[in-house]
Amino acid sequence: MLRQALAREYPGSSAENFVITNGASEALDLIFRSWARLQARQGNGDKVLLPRPYYYSYPPVVELAGMVPVYTDLVDGRIDIDDFKKKIKGCKAVLINSPSNPTGRVEAIETLKEIEKITQELGVYVVSDEVYKDLIYERENYHIKGEHVITVNSFSKTYCMCGVRVGYLWSADKKVVEDVCEIKTHTSMNTNLVGQDMALSAMKAPKSFISKQQEVWRERRDYIYKGLTDLGFDLWKPEGAFYVLPKCKNAREFVTLLYEEFKVITYLGEWFGASDRIRLSYALDIKQMEEGLSRIKSAMKKVNVL
Amino acid sequence: MLRQALAREYPGSSAENFVITNGASEALDLIFRSWARLQARQGNGDKVLLPRPYYYSYPPVVELAGMVPVYTDLVDGRIDIDDFKKKIKGCKAVLINSPSNPTGRVEAIETLKEIEKITQELGVYVVSDEVYKDLIYERENYHIKGEHVITVNSFSKTYCMCGVRVGYLWSADKKVVEDVCEIKTHTSMNTNLVGQDMALSAMKAPKSFISKQQEVWRERRDYIYKGLTDLGFDLWKPEGAFYVLPKCKNAREFVTLLYEEFKVITYLGEWFGASDRIRLSYALDIKQMEEGLSRIKSAMKKVNVL
Repeated sequence: MLRQALAREYPGSSAENFVITNGASEALDLIFRSWARLQARQGNGDKVLLPRPYYYSYPPVVELAGMVPVYTDLVDGRIDIDDFKKKIKGCKAVLINSPSNPTGRVEAIETLKEIEKITQELGVYVVSDEVYKDLIYERENYHIKGEHVITVNSFSKTYCMCGVRVGYLWSADKKVVEDVCEIKTHTSMNTNLVGQDMALSAMKAPKSFISKQQEVWRERRDYIYKGLTDLGFDLWKPEGAFYVLPKCKNAREFVTLLYEEFKVITYLGEWFGASDRIRLSYALDIKQMEEGLSRIKSAMKKVNVL
Repeated sequence: MLRQALAREYPGSSAENFVITNGASEALDLIFRSWARLQARQGNGDKVLLPRPYYYSYPPVVELAGMVPVYTDLVDGRIDIDDFKKKIKGCKAVLINSPSNPTGRVEAIETLKEIEKITQELGVYVVSDEVYKDLIYERENYHIKGEHVITVNSFSKTYCMCGVRVGYLWSADKKVVEDVCEIKTHTSMNTNLVGQDMALSAMKAPKSFISKQQEVWRERRDYIYKGLTDLGFDLWKPEGAFYVLPKCKNAREFVTLLYEEFKVITYLGEWFGASDRIRLSYALDIKQMEEGLSRIKSAMKKVNVL
């Protein structure tokens, strides 16, 4: 039922193109594990290209599957297509995350199309983590396609269902779907049925629910971007998701101080491969952000961060 | 909350001894993966002893973690302690399942105590899959203990919550718990919160609910055991869980015939490491079993199974 509902959102698809997973995390994990098995059997390639800064689970999930992460550093928060072209050679796959956690950046449609084309020519898989696809403020999502593409998605962000753990993967290549199912049968069986029912009901919500949410997120983004800029921080302007990743000197000291003395939770950029930055979430209402920014301002008097 | 409730059922435990997982399957998967990581770092032992017949996911889950299953064959459906003593040497762990899926057998308390002792002396981990612990018809469950023991459990069978995917692991060794959590953070994050709430509510059910269930299961066991024996099958009498594993010639042909022509689902014994047997579940009411046995009787006219 849920897979059939999803198929209506993916043109040319049927239920057989989907695997419902215990959140997007499990989808990613199973994809890399399915390759690691094949690799052990066939003895071929094992590198996975990751744009850096990356979501903090990407390197461990790749490594847990016995594969090797290699990195292409973002320029101004976006993929540097020249570096990408160099690094992608010899890789089994690339893992794209647009909109990105932690950068909040959305890749240009031309970039996504170029990645789609280059990888197809080279026979490299694209794992496209689109869990923030409905939280883009600038344009519609561009859904990368092709036999070599595996899309990973989730109900957590679009429908505020974090914690319910319902995600999925989509692939036009039914062999990919079968390989993933074969492992999942043994490692976690089905995805919880109550959550799947909730996801199915959520999908019946009018699309205006999603566009109204986007308004709220844009307003929050504007608020935190201006607030941090006014405090003197150097940061990329988010175009999607709900994170900012400002530059920050003495990041470890500052994050610890914010947490222990000011009760403000921030994450160290180094967890995301960006050691000179910190990550803030703006999944908060304006009032809370106002308070948070005022505490950050106070903390800045104790640590030199700019 | 759920871990605190569980801690009251495990003497001397606290919430920190538990990890709530996406069913018992994920608990097992994470345990072996945590060792595989350590092993890759430290370069030491990697064999896991499995009593055979085994639950069909055990060998793949061990192998997916890069470890090697070795087997001790059950005698009359129970662990042969002499063979066990030979095979356990050099193993990292043994995976015990009592009551057993697929044999329905329950190990004697003396056997479990001996395994507890031998493994402690040798420094071998015991992974004790006790998902059927509340479905023993003969005696109370004996909960193997010690720093070297990891218990895996589930709410699926005790509380008829299959499909909701809430299981857990317990270990007195907090390092084991930490290692598992570290992987789970990346591979599936938390276990679905709705299911955890359901599990917590289920735990408040009076114990009489469980003992009444046991009556029902015992009655079903008696019914199917007599029914299959009367048809001439040679089988072990189940003492727990809800499976029987009769001997069966031409098993593949018979299972296919039952499924396609008689709409009776049985499993091939070879999936459980017992190629001369078939597995039947008796998670059915008496009326359905009566019908099923009558269909099996008809099918026996077409294939020589005895």
